[in-house]
Amino acid sequence: MASIGLQKLLQAGTKIVAVGRNYAAHAQELGNAVPKEPVLFLKPTSSYLENGGTIEVPPSLLSLDHEVELAVVIGRKARDVPEPAAMDYVGGYALGLDMTAREIQSKAKSAGLPWTVAKGQDTFTPISSVLDKSLVPDPDDLELWLKVDDEIRQKGSTKDMIFKLPYLISHISSIMTLFEGDVILTGTPQGVGPVKVGQKITAGITGLIDIHFNVEQRQRPGS
Amino acid sequence: MASIGLQKLLQAGTKIVAVGRNYAAHAQELGNAVPKEPVLFLKPTSSYLENGGTIEVPPSLLSLDHEVELAVVIGRKARDVPEPAAMDYVGGYALGLDMTAREIQSKAKSAGLPWTVAKGQDTFTPISSVLDKSLVPDPDDLELWLKVDDEIRQKGSTKDMIFKLPYLISHISSIMTLFEGDVILTGTPQGVGPVKVGQKITAGITGLIDIHFNVEQRQRPGS
Ligand SMILES: [Mg+2]
Ligand SMILES: [Mg+2]
Ligand SMILES: [Mg+2]
Repeated sequence: MASIGLQKLLQAGTKIVAVGRNYAAHAQELGNAVPKEPVLFLKPTSSYLENGGTIEVPPSLLSLDHEVELAVVIGRKARDVPEPAAMDYVGGYALGLDMTAREIQSKAKSAGLPWTVAKGQDTFTPISSVLDKSLVPDPDDLELWLKVDDEIRQKGSTKDMIFKLPYLISHISSIMTLFEGDVILTGTPQGVGPVKVGQKITAGITGLIDIHFNVEQRQRPGS
Repeated sequence: MASIGLQKLLQAGTKIVAVGRNYAAHAQELGNAVPKEPVLFLKPTSSYLENGGTIEVPPSLLSLDHEVELAVVIGRKARDVPEPAAMDYVGGYALGLDMTAREIQSKAKSAGLPWTVAKGQDTFTPISSVLDKSLVPDPDDLELWLKVDDEIRQKGSTKDMIFKLPYLISHISSIMTLFEGDVILTGTPQGVGPVKVGQKITAGITGLIDIHFNVEQRQRPGS
């Protein structure tokens, strides 16, 4: 366990490293090749939203895409961690949503530009409380699910990850130091799609935790 | 001034928001169009390197590109800040280098992928101490320079920024909340190019501050 309290971990973190296209079926549904090495991008910790909060759709958009993901919360400083030791650096797990402004991302991809505005806005990373790793004996065999209102949109198993957790932790830590409270969002199974203003998202790890969020139009101050 | 000490500001920060192509002459030297809105990407704070440190070139590369940039250090929480008030949110300034693995970035751009690995590795954001804003009465009229060994590579004025500081702070704060200690890297003037293992970088803001760094090959543990 981490040296700071489990629920303080996320507040202590300074980055979210997200993995794209880590489930073959999801890569295919967006017309992307299955990657040879992990696709990595950063989300700012200012994008976190606690369970029960409101996901804000920017004024120029009508919807955001949902991506339900297993979040690995780092328990201690990790740099050049070898794969066999990688799981020792896990402080806990959470369920996260990698909310995505897909149209903005599509334009950025076509122009060879970063995904920051598409992925990094406030409330774009709804996340559960942190589960102690003792509650998650086999993180490679978790069922993740997501509903919009009453409709199941995503259901998948972490078994189907292309790059598994020890590889991801080892690989990312060879690129950048991970600190206590940093989060790896490990990619989403198939079924991503839009959630519109006025709808509700519920999501969970079967048997472990569930979370729920409203989706509303973001109001600018003075508007 | 910030409520925490000036030199602690960077340690308190949780993100670096970098602006690409913010000087027309630099956009052109890389064959890019001058953007209609700021190109934004994130660098992790784990990439900071203090003055006098060693920039580490990853094992697979022989050089990194240097980009000298004015860093704006945020002094207090900023969200939806209007342009006329934006400069009140500045806590100080620093000189930063946005070190870039250009080959990795070029491949990422072609593939529509994020720049995280090209821009976000440890030691890829060398940065000076923080200058109190009282020392920088006109941040729109600073000369930035960079030398590799004894050769001047970059010299430019912040006058030539396409998007000025008040616009950048206002715009970024409309996308994501900026917190005390967060940094905006405001883009680089022309003259970027490779710095090789064994060379030295010096850089400065004329009349205000200078910084210096060695460049070495990164050693993996056990190698
Ligand atoms: Mg960050
Ligand atoms: Mg995702
Ligand atoms: Mg730059």
